[in-house]
Amino acid sequence: MTSINPQIDHYMNKNKNRARLLVSCPDQPGIVSTISTLLFNHQANIVESSQYTTDPSDGRFFLRIVFESEHLQENEEQIRSSIKEVAERFDMKWTLSFLYQLKKTAIFASKDITCLRELLYQWESGDLVTDIALVISNHETGRDIVESFGIPFYHIPANKDIRKEVEAKQLKLLEEHQVDLIVLARYMQILTPDFVAAYPSKIINIHHSFLPAFIGANPHKRAYERGVKLIGATSHYVTDDLDEGPIIEQDLIRVDHRNHVEDLKKKGRLIERSVLARGVKWDLEDRVLVHENKTIVFD
Amino acid sequence: MTSINPQIDHYMNKNKNRARLLVSCPDQPGIVSTISTLLFNHQANIVESSQYTTDPSDGRFFLRIVFESEHLQENEEQIRSSIKEVAERFDMKWTLSFLYQLKKTAIFASKDITCLRELLYQWESGDLVTDIALVISNHETGRDIVESFGIPFYHIPANKDIRKEVEAKQLKLLEEHQVDLIVLARYMQILTPDFVAAYPSKIINIHHSFLPAFIGANPHKRAYERGVKLIGATSHYVTDDLDEGPIIEQDLIRVDHRNHVEDLKKKGRLIERSVLARGVKWDLEDRVLVHENKTIVFD
Amino acid sequence: MTSINPQIDHYMNKNKNRARLLVSCPDQPGIVSTISTLLFNHQANIVESSQYTTDPSDGRFFLRIVFESEHLQENEEQIRSSIKEVAERFDMKWTLSFLYQLKKTAIFASKDITCLRELLYQWESGDLVTDIALVISNHETGRDIVESFGIPFYHIPANKDIRKEVEAKQLKLLEEHQVDLIVLARYMQILTPDFVAAYPSKIINIHHSFLPAFIGANPHKRAYERGVKLIGATSHYVTDDLDEGPIIEQDLIRVDHRNHVEDLKKKGRLIERSVLARGVKWDLEDRVLVHENKTIVFD
Amino acid sequence: MTSINPQIDHYMNKNKNRARLLVSCPDQPGIVSTISTLLFNHQANIVESSQYTTDPSDGRFFLRIVFESEHLQENEEQIRSSIKEVAERFDMKWTLSFLYQLKKTAIFASKDITCLRELLYQWESGDLVTDIALVISNHETGRDIVESFGIPFYHIPANKDIRKEVEAKQLKLLEEHQVDLIVLARYMQILTPDFVAAYPSKIINIHHSFLPAFIGANPHKRAYERGVKLIGATSHYVTDDLDEGPIIEQDLIRVDHRNHVEDLKKKGRLIERSVLARGVKWDLEDRVLVHENKTIVFD
Repeated sequence: MTSINPQIDHYMNKNKNRARLLVSCPDQPGIVSTISTLLFNHQANIVESSQYTTDPSDGRFFLRIVFESEHLQENEEQIRSSIKEVAERFDMKWTLSFLYQLKKTAIFASKDITCLRELLYQWESGDLVTDIALVISNHETGRDIVESFGIPFYHIPANKDIRKEVEAKQLKLLEEHQVDLIVLARYMQILTPDFVAAYPSKIINIHHSFLPAFIGANPHKRAYERGVKLIGATSHYVTDDLDEGPIIEQDLIRVDHRNHVEDLKKKGRLIERSVLARGVKWDLEDRVLVHENKTIVFD
Repeated sequence: MTSINPQIDHYMNKNKNRARLLVSCPDQPGIVSTISTLLFNHQANIVESSQYTTDPSDGRFFLRIVFESEHLQENEEQIRSSIKEVAERFDMKWTLSFLYQLKKTAIFASKDITCLRELLYQWESGDLVTDIALVISNHETGRDIVESFGIPFYHIPANKDIRKEVEAKQLKLLEEHQVDLIVLARYMQILTPDFVAAYPSKIINIHHSFLPAFIGANPHKRAYERGVKLIGATSHYVTDDLDEGPIIEQDLIRVDHRNHVEDLKKKGRLIERSVLARGVKWDLEDRVLVHENKTIVFD
Repeated sequence: MTSINPQIDHYMNKNKNRARLLVSCPDQPGIVSTISTLLFNHQANIVESSQYTTDPSDGRFFLRIVFESEHLQENEEQIRSSIKEVAERFDMKWTLSFLYQLKKTAIFASKDITCLRELLYQWESGDLVTDIALVISNHETGRDIVESFGIPFYHIPANKDIRKEVEAKQLKLLEEHQVDLIVLARYMQILTPDFVAAYPSKIINIHHSFLPAFIGANPHKRAYERGVKLIGATSHYVTDDLDEGPIIEQDLIRVDHRNHVEDLKKKGRLIERSVLARGVKWDLEDRVLVHENKTIVFD
Repeated sequence: MTSINPQIDHYMNKNKNRARLLVSCPDQPGIVSTISTLLFNHQANIVESSQYTTDPSDGRFFLRIVFESEHLQENEEQIRSSIKEVAERFDMKWTLSFLYQLKKTAIFASKDITCLRELLYQWESGDLVTDIALVISNHETGRDIVESFGIPFYHIPANKDIRKEVEAKQLKLLEEHQVDLIVLARYMQILTPDFVAAYPSKIINIHHSFLPAFIGANPHKRAYERGVKLIGATSHYVTDDLDEGPIIEQDLIRVDHRNHVEDLKKKGRLIERSVLARGVKWDLEDRVLVHENKTIVFD
């Protein structure tokens, strides 16, 4: 493990015996009993557990378990294969994260670096536990701050006419850096279906409105014209339907008749950065499960 | 003055020397100076004042002034005619309310009486200073509580096939009671353009979503399906465009993946009642001015 | 089962196969596995589960499980005795509630009935699932509304000089009605240690400040004098230390320099009723566990 | 005028014809009329106006007026002397700010630079319209980011044993830079009465609790121990009574039983930065008047 930053090093050291299991499957009796007994047999202690069933009579079951074991690293393969076996029996989709393995994140940015800055700051404070592997931007604006943290910054000019070439370069970089999660921090460019398909439920976007209000371009201008009394922000997974992907988090801030479009933009920024950071944090902490076009977010 | 309830009697007695002036006109220098000098010459003291100009270089000017004078009642006509003269000079639209004259309100209700109950309670507590002249409902549900306050309750069954006849009866009652303001407290029936035209900017509706999200029917069901993380409520003046009138107030409440449509309805009720009550209160206190399709709400 | 009101009847019918288990014990491996296997062996399906450990290395473990079984009522005794056995092995404190058995609640009220009214309304709407067995008040104010729901209302005048006699009467009524939970809905009288000892962690009070700010009398007056920008409310379990018991829920509402003490009282009421209702709801739903002088509240 | 940053240059250019007048005096009829007529006679147009009277019958009157005039700079002295004359007549305290003159601010920081960073960022975005003349810190932590904006950074180690010497150095720097406002951005050192007396109502501090709850040291630790459900932050003017000065702004954020002291600190930071930035912004915009130990904050 190379050092990321003191806060994250500290977090990883403290949590090196922990893992997180995310499961979804058709509901049936005995799931919790089977998994908790499996973990007990591996000398693992459950430290957090949350579950949800869409409909107790005939639904889909979702589970998040955080467990701790003194010999986690040496037993990793055994635990994984035990879970695999159970997963087949119950027809489960599952992911297992060991906290000694840091997820890699790419941030896509543009001219307004408020969200980028917030992600960097929360990462520096140890709130976003990840390796920010690279930042890709179609402007030079954020280079200094990104590089001051020792993070590679790639300037790839982009516009809709050269989308294919741009995405090819981006995908190459993402593969080289073995990225797990992509965050669009006000990137402002539409991604092609091919790009989205390469990272299903692994691209988080921030939209500067309370979706589904003001889908599409210029939400602040339209919010101003409609005379709404709060403006919002929405972090969501990107799908092929623009602004229609599963919502992770939303919040709003009060405005009034004195606030012009420029004021809405300024106020909006303060809420966007928080809504995006929370969405990213919850994804990195394996709290978010996608079901149909909605999310289950475990506290 | 007949007694309304102890809280409102107390309020009116305390404020019998006060009046409120609402003005809007093309902006130009000297408006504040002219009006404040006019009031000074009538021995009136300005106790509250708020103003807003859409654009200082070439905009529309809005003003709300609360003033106090020991001889208000005897000078009412003189003050009114002085203001009228100034208003003509500056091309003003204006309204002048003397607090010793109580506005009359009609509430339209239906089966779910949460909002009706809140209005009655805030009126009883002296928060809504008005004479609730009558309640009209297409169900019997609220009769007991309404009549327990000595307020007339009219049950007029309604549906879209008999809209004209129903509205004729309602308009007759509204005229008989000389109503200033109509509050649709989850009335759930669409009004005809003729009805709306009879009370321009004088009908307040509560919509159970954060408009313009989920315009139209079943907003909670659609909010559930979209997977939003907060649900809202909007109080607005009624115009001919359904759910498109000027917004007075909005608010939202957090929900999560565990909340089904029924839960959204329950949580929604708690916010709807407050959003409607605030909208009504601000209108009764002459805080709301309509400009194009938006509101100016003076604190 | 006698009918309570249509909403609660509906809820109970829908949930007649459900039970809730609350557990706290010293943390050790195998607890979740043991309990989930026990429930599985009784053909019970876990539909909700939340847990918390004060400190994973050497702490106290807290668990809330909602489970469902088709033959719950006939198996009640067997399930109870299985849990009892496990509880002894793990040194557990535990409670088990079957949802076909309604908890009985007493409300203590006084002159300001805002909170009482809110509890009645949320009970009528099915949000507070309980049998409101009786209301005791030292004023007559709420009698009409309470009796309109068919709930017994007892007027017992109270002041600090006759505290013992008053409490003797109250305790007698509480026993006759076999009350599980007491809610002080702005009751404004201090209870003796003997009274508190008779209902440990079973008396919920609402304090009209954000505790520990403005402990004691006249919080709104003191909030006004200090010039705070929000005023709060706190629902908490009653202990012998006035306003020092475990906090269940808190919330605040914005005020400004224009708001005098009377305005703070009016605004405060709107938040108190909600904070109290949420605290009561969570207790009735077995979501609250007391640990030392704090609460664990499971979502 | 030297260039500060593009956003502030833009703001100043746009507002070079504007000034703000803040007034407080014993209430009496004719104040608004006199001032508005005075401004009209100077060809000045009132673009914003707010007023407040502590008690209309016998109180103190507070007024904030923003006015605009094409020949503001050349008429500055005449306007000032007209106001001076009126002020003497009405026994007014007053301040007059011309927006072409930028106020100078000093920021005092320490190890945790979250608040410092937020102030710099909001200044860069044009939200805090001021000349950040210097940053003084007792740690080196913020030097890089401060100097990257071209702002002088002074490292003056401080502790309670050398308070006098430290303050002497600080006061010398503040005088050299002709500072109007001092912001304690988590500076964590107590100031002597002499220092406070040198800048009355001109030092803004951020306290990491909802005052008056948790006055003094370690508020997050004490909040944790009390088990509160929200933690707050308060920005206030510094007086000789620690944490007792007039409150400008407060806000809170939800926490729960799972949050340990470290988590409260992390969550707290997100709210502190906003509460401080709003307090500073409002002071710079001449929105805050101190009356006894409270503030009047005009929207």
